Amino acid sequence: MSGHGQAAWELLLPAAGAPARRRGRALQEALREAVRSGRLTAGTRLPSTRALAADLGVSRGLVTEAYEQLTAEGYLRSDRGAGTWVGDAARATHARGDARGPVAGARARGDAHGPAAGARARAGSGPGAGAGARPRGAAGRGAGRSEVRVDFHPGTPDLSLFPRAAWSGAQRAVLARLTHPALGYPDPRGLPELREALAGMLTRRRGVVADPERLVVCSGVAQASTLLGFVLRARGLDAVGIEDPGSPEHGRLFASTGLGTVWLPLDEEGLMPEPLAASGVRAVVVTPSHQFPSGISWSAERRAALLGWARAVDGYVLEDDYDGDFRYDRAPVGALQGLDPERVVYAGSVSKSLAPGLRLGWMLVPEDLVDEVVERKRTMDLGNPVLDQAVLAEFVTRGGYDRQLRRCQRAYRERRDVLLAALAEHLPGTRVSGIAAGLHVIARVPGRYGPPERFLARAAEAGVALRPLEEYGTARPGDGDVRLVIGYAHLSPSAVTAGIRLVAEAVGRD
Amino acid sequence: MSGHGQAAWELLLPAAGAPARRRGRALQEALREAVRSGRLTAGTRLPSTRALAADLGVSRGLVTEAYEQLTAEGYLRSDRGAGTWVGDAARATHARGDARGPVAGARARGDAHGPAAGARARAGSGPGAGAGARPRGAAGRGAGRSEVRVDFHPGTPDLSLFPRAAWSGAQRAVLARLTHPALGYPDPRGLPELREALAGMLTRRRGVVADPERLVVCSGVAQASTLLGFVLRARGLDAVGIEDPGSPEHGRLFASTGLGTVWLPLDEEGLMPEPLAASGVRAVVVTPSHQFPSGISWSAERRAALLGWARAVDGYVLEDDYDGDFRYDRAPVGALQGLDPERVVYAGSVSKSLAPGLRLGWMLVPEDLVDEVVERKRTMDLGNPVLDQAVLAEFVTRGGYDRQLRRCQRAYRERRDVLLAALAEHLPGTRVSGIAAGLHVIARVPGRYGPPERFLARAAEAGVALRPLEEYGTARPGDGDVRLVIGYAHLSPSAVTAGIRLVAEAVGRD
Repeated sequence: MSGHGQAAWELLLPAAGAPARRRGRALQEALREAVRSGRLTAGTRLPSTRALAADLGVSRGLVTEAYEQLTAEGYLRSDRGAGTWVGDAARATHARGDARGPVAGARARGDAHGPAAGARARAGSGPGAGAGARPRGAAGRGAGRSEVRVDFHPGTPDLSLFPRAAWSGAQRAVLARLTHPALGYPDPRGLPELREALAGMLTRRRGVVADPERLVVCSGVAQASTLLGFVLRARGLDAVGIEDPGSPEHGRLFASTGLGTVWLPLDEEGLMPEPLAASGVRAVVVTPSHQFPSGISWSAERRAALLGWARAVDGYVLEDDYDGDFRYDRAPVGALQGLDPERVVYAGSVSKSLAPGLRLGWMLVPEDLVDEVVERKRTMDLGNPVLDQAVLAEFVTRGGYDRQLRRCQRAYRERRDVLLAALAEHLPGTRVSGIAAGLHVIARVPGRYGPPERFLARAAEAGVALRPLEEYGTARPGDGDVRLVIGYAHLSPSAVTAGIRLVAEAVGRD
Repeated sequence: MSGHGQAAWELLLPAAGAPARRRGRALQEALREAVRSGRLTAGTRLPSTRALAADLGVSRGLVTEAYEQLTAEGYLRSDRGAGTWVGDAARATHARGDARGPVAGARARGDAHGPAAGARARAGSGPGAGAGARPRGAAGRGAGRSEVRVDFHPGTPDLSLFPRAAWSGAQRAVLARLTHPALGYPDPRGLPELREALAGMLTRRRGVVADPERLVVCSGVAQASTLLGFVLRARGLDAVGIEDPGSPEHGRLFASTGLGTVWLPLDEEGLMPEPLAASGVRAVVVTPSHQFPSGISWSAERRAALLGWARAVDGYVLEDDYDGDFRYDRAPVGALQGLDPERVVYAGSVSKSLAPGLRLGWMLVPEDLVDEVVERKRTMDLGNPVLDQAVLAEFVTRGGYDRQLRRCQRAYRERRDVLLAALAEHLPGTRVSGIAAGLHVIARVPGRYGPPERFLARAAEAGVALRPLEEYGTARPGDGDVRLVIGYAHLSPSAVTAGIRLVAEAVGRD
């Protein structure tokens, strides 16, 4: 087991006798942790999958899967045929030392990039929904005055999947169990038992560094954005970069904190490094696991490049993990935060997995920012309501949350398949892009079905609300194709099919 | 029924056959409404209690009580022996017209008073609790290292009175009843059924103008302060006046919105008009029904003077009705907001009546500000969680909330009586000031029990946490007496007695 550099391979050993799935997960977690802690340093060459499998007494497929997963996440890098190395994207969790630099100095450095010009800051143009709220004009552009029969707006889960009976039972249990003092003014960071439960769940499911001490319960990703916005504004930042295409809602939220937003162009791998560097911003909001709305998963290179940029400008990254739990073809890519918990603010919520009406979410905050975020949370609302927090803790620790995710996953995967089949049947030639994940797809309908304006108008007249991709960014390709952001999760499979058929009939006639 | 000016007295007629208590309330509401609507104009002389009682066919006592109540609230004024008139404090709800002035002009006028000087703004000095959160060092000043056996901190209700079974039942009912869409992103103003229920309850109990359209559900008075603070800051204000003595917590909340705070001196009737006028502020936070912490109820004159000031400077008043439901000797004085709903932002919560951990409250907002407040609420958290909102609506409409208030009222009245008796027995000579209301008293312990520092230290050594009045304002009388803010509501009667006895023993020995 020696001979592979200084790495203590024995530490990676999953519990013997555990089921293969758990051993695979344990191997991945151990590898991530070894990279983060610096036990596996950048440039270390990993043993071949065959050798490590033999060493550990596990199947080779399990090791291959672990290497692939961590390569996708940016912890490892591999050259086809030439082996796998430890990458340099991950920042050791407990060893930032002098490289970190004081905030004051950092600010001065930031200024050297020049402040984001007012002219470049276009806060929240367009009525898009995105990871946050549904747009106010809910029927969507071009819906006209027709009655909406099928509304393909993205961002809302199927609310009929909310586990009412289980939630009600957990509420009853919680009210019977909570102490009297627990009903008093809450801890603004969140109920300790929930922070503990979420830290465990997020470490396991999303590969993050989730110390309960840096976990702040908040009322969702929207509030996480506002909290972080106020903190960054108080530190002298004046703009935040957002992905283009992306969620204009972020722009509105940051505007409320006094921050402008700058659209930053995206390609098929993630944020493009040069425009990012040239923008002058020192904070960005990104959706690397499943980019909203384009549907791509950021490449490992771009994940690493983003973190490199953040360190260079002493900046921060807000990772909006709005639907990271829903991947249908493989295990979800681990969150960016795991690679550098001191540069990435990770935010998620139960809005897609349970219900947006619960207004319950979480942030993992760099140590450097956590006191300021908590004080902001305190002055904003003194902390989240305790009963729902206690119910969610119960739900997570007793397995109800995992069950709910599996249930949603099955339902949404089916609906996505149904949508793809309906598009293939009724609007042949339509190309769907993005990974098999989430609650929406990007569909590019060829120009032969009519120019975009007419296509949308016809669909609206037929009672189908569709949202063009243009609402989520600045791109205007002008090639005559219709690019749509189609949310399917809240619709029954038959409604999905009926909606696409209605569109096809509407755009077909003349 | 004519002969009493142009007033349509018949409109005041309570339903015949209704129980006396309800007829009395109906008469009061009708009188308030007649003054507000302008049907009874300022200066109109009211019929004698005898004449009106005869006209309406009710007892004279009922009319006398109504006149007294509305005089205390500022709607009427009376000269002993010379009759009762309609006062000029109330502003007709729907008839502000040109007198209102556009915001821009108003801002310019405000500037003429001069901005609050930085030197005068002392945001949140002192660790006080007040209407908001309990202070972080919960054991109180002087508690030293002794174990705290009795903690007389003010501001927390008895959490064992929380109606767990009834709340749990309402939760179950709500989860069985709510539609699926109700679990989606909430209305940032609050659940319509809750706003409807609260508007009715507040009109009935607190004499406010509570149109559901101007009611905003929020997470408590702390968030109401922050929401209003951001809105006023965006309108160009830079400081808010707070009562001295008062709640330093308000200072911390406003500081988070960029507003300074200015202490404004209080006497035994309310805010003193001259320092208020000289301060240059255009917004104040007040607790007129039961001033925190002094315990006075503002006089009708000062209520009128405050509204007169607000109109003159085009300003706003935040009425923190933190414990307006708990009055033990008579009906609570109606809220200030009823007199001028376009100048007063009324804020209340369930923190004292149910539990602070619910983080559930409400604001009544002038029409002029409501859109800005709602947009702030939206960017802060998208709206309150829906399940607790639905449960509270159920509770209010089915009588559970009134039952809970009666239950707390009985318990707290008894504890207050027990506290007063214990002070009289164990620390004779102690004077308790303030009205019979709320969850705390102000006690002035004569200097013969030792100088304040020693008194507090001795109490702390004996395991009793006490808070000096000094923590809540700038006054330092230096007369050797010990002024205490004693919260009793969260303690059992026996703990109240034991705590005072411990203090007496501790300060008695030498």
